[in-house]
Amino acid sequence: MTKVLIIYASDYGSTKKMAEAVAEGVKTVAGAEALLRTAETVTADEMLAAEAIIFGSPVHMGSVDWRVKKVIDTICSGMWMKNLLTGKVGAVFATGSGFGDSGGGAELTLLSMLTNVAELGLIIVPLPKNTPGYPQGGMQWGPVGRSADLNLNPTGLSDDSLVAARHHGANVARVADVIKEKNLFAK
Amino acid sequence: MTKVLIIYASDYGSTKKMAEAVAEGVKTVAGAEALLRTAETVTADEMLAAEAIIFGSPVHMGSVDWRVKKVIDTICSGMWMKNLLTGKVGAVFATGSGFGDSGGGAELTLLSMLTNVAELGLIIVPLPKNTPGYPQGGMQWGPVGRSADLNLNPTGLSDDSLVAARHHGANVARVADVIKEKNLFAK
Amino acid sequence: MTKVLIIYASDYGSTKKMAEAVAEGVKTVAGAEALLRTAETVTADEMLAAEAIIFGSPVHMGSVDWRVKKVIDTICSGMWMKNLLTGKVGAVFATGSGFGDSGGGAELTLLSMLTNVAELGLIIVPLPKNTPGYPQGGMQWGPVGRSADLNLNPTGLSDDSLVAARHHGANVARVADVIKEKNLFAK
Amino acid sequence: MTKVLIIYASDYGSTKKMAEAVAEGVKTVAGAEALLRTAETVTADEMLAAEAIIFGSPVHMGSVDWRVKKVIDTICSGMWMKNLLTGKVGAVFATGSGFGDSGGGAELTLLSMLTNVAELGLIIVPLPKNTPGYPQGGMQWGPVGRSADLNLNPTGLSDDSLVAARHHGANVARVADVIKEKNLFAK
Repeated sequence: MTKVLIIYASDYGSTKKMAEAVAEGVKTVAGAEALLRTAETVTADEMLAAEAIIFGSPVHMGSVDWRVKKVIDTICSGMWMKNLLTGKVGAVFATGSGFGDSGGGAELTLLSMLTNVAELGLIIVPLPKNTPGYPQGGMQWGPVGRSADLNLNPTGLSDDSLVAARHHGANVARVADVIKEKNLFAK
Repeated sequence: MTKVLIIYASDYGSTKKMAEAVAEGVKTVAGAEALLRTAETVTADEMLAAEAIIFGSPVHMGSVDWRVKKVIDTICSGMWMKNLLTGKVGAVFATGSGFGDSGGGAELTLLSMLTNVAELGLIIVPLPKNTPGYPQGGMQWGPVGRSADLNLNPTGLSDDSLVAARHHGANVARVADVIKEKNLFAK
Repeated sequence: MTKVLIIYASDYGSTKKMAEAVAEGVKTVAGAEALLRTAETVTADEMLAAEAIIFGSPVHMGSVDWRVKKVIDTICSGMWMKNLLTGKVGAVFATGSGFGDSGGGAELTLLSMLTNVAELGLIIVPLPKNTPGYPQGGMQWGPVGRSADLNLNPTGLSDDSLVAARHHGANVARVADVIKEKNLFAK
Repeated sequence: MTKVLIIYASDYGSTKKMAEAVAEGVKTVAGAEALLRTAETVTADEMLAAEAIIFGSPVHMGSVDWRVKKVIDTICSGMWMKNLLTGKVGAVFATGSGFGDSGGGAELTLLSMLTNVAELGLIIVPLPKNTPGYPQGGMQWGPVGRSADLNLNPTGLSDDSLVAARHHGANVARVADVIKEKNLFAK
């Protein structure tokens, strides 16, 4: 089995919906299984058991949700210290509004999770430009769902964002399947 | 006089149009004048003579245009070495497409110019959320114009992006007017 | 009076020490007073009453401490929604180890606080290169103290880092004194 | 064969030396070969023929050298448009001074190359914390060599930086060997 762990926080359900789409995508890959966990409930053992870890967050003031950051600070940092996750696969996604019409901080939100992914020594899966759904739900670092319009009124996520999220999950599962147990990193 | 220098590169004219809107905004402020220069033509003396410097760039592969970076590497770096611009005022803006619908790298584009602005010791003017035009043309680091739609087809800039750009220029001129000749930084 | 509020989190005392140095610097400026608050205790009213707000954090897995992020998500975001802090002055600082010898994520840590500073519409004070203490305690976005050596062994902060932090506090106080009550931003 | 292309710019030879160390590391992997090219001379065909592409740059004003950015804007962007490099492997490294003692912008320099790597759809190889040489030459995004001391006086690169660079090259070659011709990405 190729286990993909998806860790997220959600306020009004949009990031949860994105996380579920990522999980659906994982499951389309033969031999892959998805484990969905909120930032409040995920454990170190679940991270250890996974071949890939995907972090997802709403955009809050231009960076990652504090609950996701709390997991990173209190659980991931201990595993970093002991090099326990090195060589696995990692990826990220986010959900924001359409306010400003240029991402509103989604990029630094993805990067504030990716810096943790890189610190942990995970091989990073980006989102290629020709992924289905990308024109409305893509950024190079991972899928981004919009849950509100230009004036911050809630709209729900577009189908295309969820399509991009699904393919992101499948991409990560396929890369993890190829990478797992290979011990590719010098130490 | 409060002189505001606007340095930009442009491929198909959108960033030039944003730069002109920033300049118009500068001129609405009493005692302020705007100087528009392309990255290919601006000089060190023009930077020295300005009270504020604003950098603008199209988004190219998720960061600043190489011509703007060339000015930064070949002219700004020499002035950094000698601390010649410290204490002036700085700001940024960008133009990108709507592809991906989440900024497509506009944020790191703004930050790759802002890091130079900070290195030079310029006081940074962000773009407040309640600036007119922000819902369609704003990011916290500065205005972002969209010149293409979700599928990369050219659309021209929205009026709102230009409105945000104009107010950004006026904001910078007002801050520069208050800051100039004050020597506020320890050395 | 020019009130400067310093909000920080600290694990083993180094970021607290940096925060205290920033506060000392504030107090060297005539008419300026410093208020030190941990991320756990600061209130919205204290932010409202300040002319400048400085955020400080240890580097954790390459970005901001979760407690600082919690304040940003739970208090700052509400004030952003209502545009309550726009036009004040903002700045940042961080504390990290020497592991890796190239900042170990200090830059994204500073930026994950600065994105909030920009979202709030605060005018940003960088750290000029010719600030005393910069060669050992400076980054363009703000002072960075090192509290451990190349091998993660605790060393305490260098005097130079504290010197840079002190001057940063004084710079912010001087800029805030000039900017306050000027209403420089369009709305 | 697993071909690894290393694209770099260098001013005084330090980034060139880092690039050569990366290439040496590549060659330690069975079946892997390294191709070193400066940003001025690399061609689109060389990128197409490679299984992995590594970008290296000196830190200039806190981001990537303009010559590296020129290649990205003028060659990589065309290949992005046509999705020609998607699914290959990518990585980055940088060289800076010790001025400031906290990276001096090395992180955004690495990220301004990584954003291009992600845009191109390359699977990203980070630098794990337990890589030999990391304590003096590592950052999570890739190795960083220091070529000057705290006061900007040239020192040459430390052996440890070159050790980290060598292992980075080997890591990339091993990941590329496993990933190549697998077509892991949805489209």
